[in-house]
Amino acid sequence: MLKKCNLVLYDPYKGRLKKPRSNGLTMIIDKGMGLNELRDLIDMASEFIDFIKFSFGTSFIYPEKILLKKINIIKDADIDVYPGGTLFEVAVEQGRMADYFKSVKELGFTAVEISDGTLHINKKIRNKAIKMALAAGFKVLSEVGKKDRDNSLSLEDMQALIKNDLNMGVYKVIVEGRESGKDISIYKKNGALDQNMLKGIIDEVEGKVEKIIWEAPLKKQQLIFLKMFGPNANFGNIHPYDIVAIEALRRGFRGDTFNYYLKEKTAGV
Amino acid sequence: MLKKCNLVLYDPYKGRLKKPRSNGLTMIIDKGMGLNELRDLIDMASEFIDFIKFSFGTSFIYPEKILLKKINIIKDADIDVYPGGTLFEVAVEQGRMADYFKSVKELGFTAVEISDGTLHINKKIRNKAIKMALAAGFKVLSEVGKKDRDNSLSLEDMQALIKNDLNMGVYKVIVEGRESGKDISIYKKNGALDQNMLKGIIDEVEGKVEKIIWEAPLKKQQLIFLKMFGPNANFGNIHPYDIVAIEALRRGFRGDTFNYYLKEKTAGV
Amino acid sequence: MLKKCNLVLYDPYKGRLKKPRSNGLTMIIDKGMGLNELRDLIDMASEFIDFIKFSFGTSFIYPEKILLKKINIIKDADIDVYPGGTLFEVAVEQGRMADYFKSVKELGFTAVEISDGTLHINKKIRNKAIKMALAAGFKVLSEVGKKDRDNSLSLEDMQALIKNDLNMGVYKVIVEGRESGKDISIYKKNGALDQNMLKGIIDEVEGKVEKIIWEAPLKKQQLIFLKMFGPNANFGNIHPYDIVAIEALRRGFRGDTFNYYLKEKTAGV
Repeated sequence: MLKKCNLVLYDPYKGRLKKPRSNGLTMIIDKGMGLNELRDLIDMASEFIDFIKFSFGTSFIYPEKILLKKINIIKDADIDVYPGGTLFEVAVEQGRMADYFKSVKELGFTAVEISDGTLHINKKIRNKAIKMALAAGFKVLSEVGKKDRDNSLSLEDMQALIKNDLNMGVYKVIVEGRESGKDISIYKKNGALDQNMLKGIIDEVEGKVEKIIWEAPLKKQQLIFLKMFGPNANFGNIHPYDIVAIEALRRGFRGDTFNYYLKEKTAGV
Repeated sequence: MLKKCNLVLYDPYKGRLKKPRSNGLTMIIDKGMGLNELRDLIDMASEFIDFIKFSFGTSFIYPEKILLKKINIIKDADIDVYPGGTLFEVAVEQGRMADYFKSVKELGFTAVEISDGTLHINKKIRNKAIKMALAAGFKVLSEVGKKDRDNSLSLEDMQALIKNDLNMGVYKVIVEGRESGKDISIYKKNGALDQNMLKGIIDEVEGKVEKIIWEAPLKKQQLIFLKMFGPNANFGNIHPYDIVAIEALRRGFRGDTFNYYLKEKTAGV
Repeated sequence: MLKKCNLVLYDPYKGRLKKPRSNGLTMIIDKGMGLNELRDLIDMASEFIDFIKFSFGTSFIYPEKILLKKINIIKDADIDVYPGGTLFEVAVEQGRMADYFKSVKELGFTAVEISDGTLHINKKIRNKAIKMALAAGFKVLSEVGKKDRDNSLSLEDMQALIKNDLNMGVYKVIVEGRESGKDISIYKKNGALDQNMLKGIIDEVEGKVEKIIWEAPLKKQQLIFLKMFGPNANFGNIHPYDIVAIEALRRGFRGDTFNYYLKEKTAGV
């Protein structure tokens, strides 16, 4: 990337894909970036970002002028942009699913998220939503997992939903991790991975892990996926201020993955 | 708020007040926003912000040029701005209370905070300070609570101070929570609320909870107050990057409050 | 600093040095600031910042245009700028040490960090690197400490490296704390200081603590050093959004150090 003043090094952790790519995706969670901050991010890191999500219902909170500007800045950088799944669930609960997709389209969003993290949504409505969103021309992401531990899905439930959504034609399935990455879905209280659930999900997609986006806000989680899947794991809920760091992590330019590369090399892998 | 491309939804958690309001206030803690960052925040979220506090003694640390610009950007957006209580305490300790109020006025601050979080200040001086600040035309906030757990106030002490300050005519009383929201005042080590202290404070104000601003930096704390008081609880020490998220939380556009709304609805409340 | 509207107070915690200084240094860890954000920081806080480090290998990740602009904005404010030690280690591992220093110089960096936080680097190569960097005109910082607890240095190892590096002529030795300040080098799992290691390091430099930069990202860590060494301790890995707060902390304008000043005063110190 450096031309004039070439830092003549290569990536320790090789094979990071360039855009456009359908694996190695990074989805940013935007909880309320201002316009200058967003422009800063795009100027610096548009190559590293595939999706920006306006988290939960924040799309409905912004002044319209700001919302439209944010959407356009992101689209102009060839990054997909979509409102958080909670807004979709509010629309379903209010009986306005079709209106929701229509206005989200008019606002300029390029993708939508179909989720049931809070609301109970039966499979018929879920599938209708996916069909409607696909027909409207959205890049459709579905999310699997509940936002409340007291109401969590079993592995079998998650597997069934993943299978269903991929059969319906969604672009990727997001595995819920919330913003904290703790005590939710595949994560234990301290943020450690539930290896059994993880294995079950990987088995379900028959090793095609590129179909899954892992919400993995914590570095220790990202590291596990990078060791398992290489530099092109798909990550969701990455905070904007972590985007350069995570790209460095992917490519082996951070202690954690550089160390992993060294151990593999020593072991003659 | 969306006109052209109306997202035809309503607030799940109804009744959020618009500005100007005297309840449902949000006070932002500014630990050192730069000018562009501050302008970003104002453009995006001025409707959601009632007070910006330049935390502890940071007002004294900025270059004067920056300080004056920050104050003016905030005032122009009809948001009150004031220096943290620690700066007031430093002035008292140095015997310069009158000079402090005078220069704070000249700098353009619209409010002040009277506190004794670190310094021991007797009631006579406290009341003199409140009188002096009111006479100078400030919106006067007082704070109750010590910054050091080894030196914390009993419920009875807090109640007496709240009663005193409201009788003296302060606009609101802030209940100390620091920036961390942990192991201080009404918060336990893990950030959980001390229900006994909370109840005692609510009793003291005879249910007029709009007189209290709760420093509540953690989402789980905000959620408790929103469930107890509705969407218009008064919050202090909210981080700038959380402002859109907290407004979404107030109005039910986040999983946590959307879920609470659903449960109330199911229960037929 | 305030001229027109003088807040006529003095620093509770006296003696903070102004720039240029060789003690009381603050090194900022930049994980990916955008250009506006960086300009904001510089406008507001250039007097408080001595070094900005582009953390780990992020220098290699940025688009070249952004990298060059960032370097120039920082240099123009008389702040030293350097790439994280991990990038140096990658260069050594790839057998490109000389090329690394050459291109880092061409890019405009003013300082370099010699470290072995991840890679095993023997003393001969370490000393060759220090010599080469000094000869190239860099301000040379060396770092002592491993990034991985399973592979940590004993106090004796740390002392030997500190002695070696100072004899070799480095400007300062950085004691590793990572970004988290936990479970690494001189820090225990909860971020508390290992007093034995701390004392051993201070003994090794015969009380000349100004030769050491302590990576101390947590406030409770900064507080310990400020109590031990006064307002001019050298701090590393300070997050950009904490820079005004830490300057306030140094000078006694925050509850924690204001409280310490009051206790010292009461004790007649």
